[in-house]
This record gives sequence, structure tokens and C-alpha cells, in this order.
Amino acid sequence: MKTITAADIAAMDKLTRVQFATSLPGAKPVALIGTRSADGLTNLAPFSSIVHFGSNPLILGMVSRPDAVERHTLSNLEATGVWTINHLHPDIVMAGHHCSARYPRETSEFAATGLTEHFEEGFHAPFVAESRFRLGMELVELIDIPLNGTTLILGKVVLVQIEETALAEDGSIDLVGLETVASTALDTYFGLTPLGRLSYAKPDRPPTRLP
Amino acid sequence: MKTITAADIAAMDKLTRVQFATSLPGAKPVALIGTRSADGLTNLAPFSSIVHFGSNPLILGMVSRPDAVERHTLSNLEATGVWTINHLHPDIVMAGHHCSARYPRETSEFAATGLTEHFEEGFHAPFVAESRFRLGMELVELIDIPLNGTTLILGKVVLVQIEETALAEDGSIDLVGLETVASTALDTYFGLTPLGRLSYAKPDRPPTRLP
Repeated sequence: MKTITAADIAAMDKLTRVQFATSLPGAKPVALIGTRSADGLTNLAPFSSIVHFGSNPLILGMVSRPDAVERHTLSNLEATGVWTINHLHPDIVMAGHHCSARYPRETSEFAATGLTEHFEEGFHAPFVAESRFRLGMELVELIDIPLNGTTLILGKVVLVQIEETALAEDGSIDLVGLETVASTALDTYFGLTPLGRLSYAKPDRPPTRLP
Repeated sequence: MKTITAADIAAMDKLTRVQFATSLPGAKPVALIGTRSADGLTNLAPFSSIVHFGSNPLILGMVSRPDAVERHTLSNLEATGVWTINHLHPDIVMAGHHCSARYPRETSEFAATGLTEHFEEGFHAPFVAESRFRLGMELVELIDIPLNGTTLILGKVVLVQIEETALAEDGSIDLVGLETVASTALDTYFGLTPLGRLSYAKPDRPPTRLP
């Protein structure tokens, strides 16, 4: 095993440290966050910091980084109270990654990358039509983290759209069937292969693989 | 596409809603969090809410749920200021999942599941010897989320141990080579297959696949 100490991390150049740091969580989700400004400009940005915060109410969080540049996603969702989470599959990974480029506010990443806007009645933020698994979110709370200027965005899931065959009766979602993509760092993408679903763990016996 | 509304979510029975809710982030990390109480009792618990909060200083977060039961991980890391994050590979998924069983505080999940404690000089929390990719963490901040009683745990990475061949000069980590496991819900595990590393995205041209 190789050991990297706090001193080694501090001595890394900036790009190396960012690559290393963003790989340490291991496998991460990656989805396109869709927002629309109050005056109607749409925006799409990839986020890999999406995390479950609660099941009742159903709360997901994500982290907005303290970029020197404008944070279009954060300002749009703060102004309008809504956003979408659009999971990726291999056919849209390239376009999704392209959304991480620093476009000016007046350029929609939909137009720039060829992804298609999809709107639901009464919901201000755009979904990605090509996504097979997408969520509509309502803002619940923004928590500023003074330590490093990031903002934790907490939202309630108010709408889920998913391919019919991917949702089971028991609430399970077939990520392999959807070809849902995982990521690490800010530039590396993976497919998923099944290792199995395991039984509810009890102290007195090892779990078993469910059929 | 199937549409699930907020009303549909509210009408789900508890187990279905938990399965559904914990699947919505898509592919998630999953790692064993190692802690040791002030009086020396070790604990291991799987977490799938590990998220990058910053690269300088290098901060990771994770979410402690508002369980009715005692939160051994949270109380240990609050008392001692340190914990470990141990990534899983297929050979230790079963033992890792077994650590989610509700053991009493006086039972170490290491002893109960057959995983091996590994200690580093001067660091109070136990690492999992079988893990190929493990982090030592120091507590920076606990943020209570009154909305649902969860706690966001923020820590600084102070030590990384990883198989020699998996860390590249540029800070990249080879998750496929390490056979790092991803997860969804609280019971489903995946392997990773490479889809590629993409070039830094620029507005005026699509990204390309890096060699």
C-alpha cells in the first residue's frame, strides 16, 4: 500500500489535488441539474455530489462549489425554487460532460450541446428529454458552509419520471437496466454491473444474496 | 415513461418509500466507516452518503441518519475527533453489508463479521485491513439539519492508503483496477466498467475521450 499524508496532500499542485480529492469518495452519482432563470433562460450543469438526506419527506442534497465564476444553477434555483436532476446513460455522457464548460449566462447548455428541453405543466425548470430517469425538486433549505464557501442545497422530490420497466413494485430502481452512469473525479465515467442485492442484515447470521 | 408524483410518494408504504428514496441519487459510493470509542470499542458501519465538499482543504462530508437507535459512528467520532473511510471490493461486500446489522454497542463489527482491524501509529480509529483504498479523517464540523434530524459530518482527509498501482502521477485513482464497489438503495451493490475519461470541457467544441 502507498501512504499519502496530509503533508503530501498540501504539497500537491492544484490540478493534481483536485483530481485526487474528487476521486476520494470513490464511485459517485453524476446527473445534469436543470434550472431556468426567472426570465426564462435555461441552464444545465453536471453535479456529482447528490446525496440522500431523508425518505419522509424525501430529501436529496447537493453541494454548490465556491467557484470564482457565477453559480448559475444556485442563483436560478434560489430565484425560482425548483430544479431537475437528470440521470445520464452512455448516449448522453459526452453532451452531459460538455455542459461543464464555462458558458456565459445567456447561453443555454441545451442549445450548446444538443440536449432537448422537456417541460412538465406547472413546473418552471427544464428536464432533459433524453434522460431515462429524472427528478423534479423543490427547494427546502440552503445551508452555507463558512469553512470553504460551499452551499448545501436541500430539496424535496416532487416528481419522478422513469422508464416503465425500471421501477419495481417494492420501490427498487433497476440502474443496470437504465444504463445509469457513475463517475469519479470531474472527468471519469463508468457503467454499472450487478454484484447483487443482499438481504436485510441481522446480527446473528451473514446476509444472503436475494434472487 | 412512468410519472410518480408527490402524492404517489406520500402514499407509499414505509419500506417501499425507503427503497425508492435511497435509489434516487442513482449510483452511490459505499464504504465502511471505522470508529473507536474513547474507551477502545471499535465500530464499523456502511455509509453511502460520502460526498466531496472541497479540495483545499480536502473536505469530505457524510450524513448521519436520525435513527431511533443509538448512532455509534456519530458518538464515537464526536468523542474522539477521527474516523476512517474504507472502500469495498467484491471480496468484502458481504462482510461490509453485515456491518449494517443492529449490533449492540459492546459488539465490534470487526469481530462479528471477520474483518481485520488495522491501526496506524497515532491515529485512534481503526482501518479495515482488507480494504484496498482507505482514508483517515479528522472532524472539522458537525451540522445539524433540523428539518429531519440528520447530521452532516464534515471532515478533513489526513491520510490515504491505496494500492501502489492505483494512484497515477496526475492524482487520478483507478477505481476499476481497485474493483471499487458502487451501491444504490441500502442493499444493492455494483461493479464499475470504464466508459472513459473525457477532456476538460470548453464551450466551443465537444469534449474528447482521453487515451
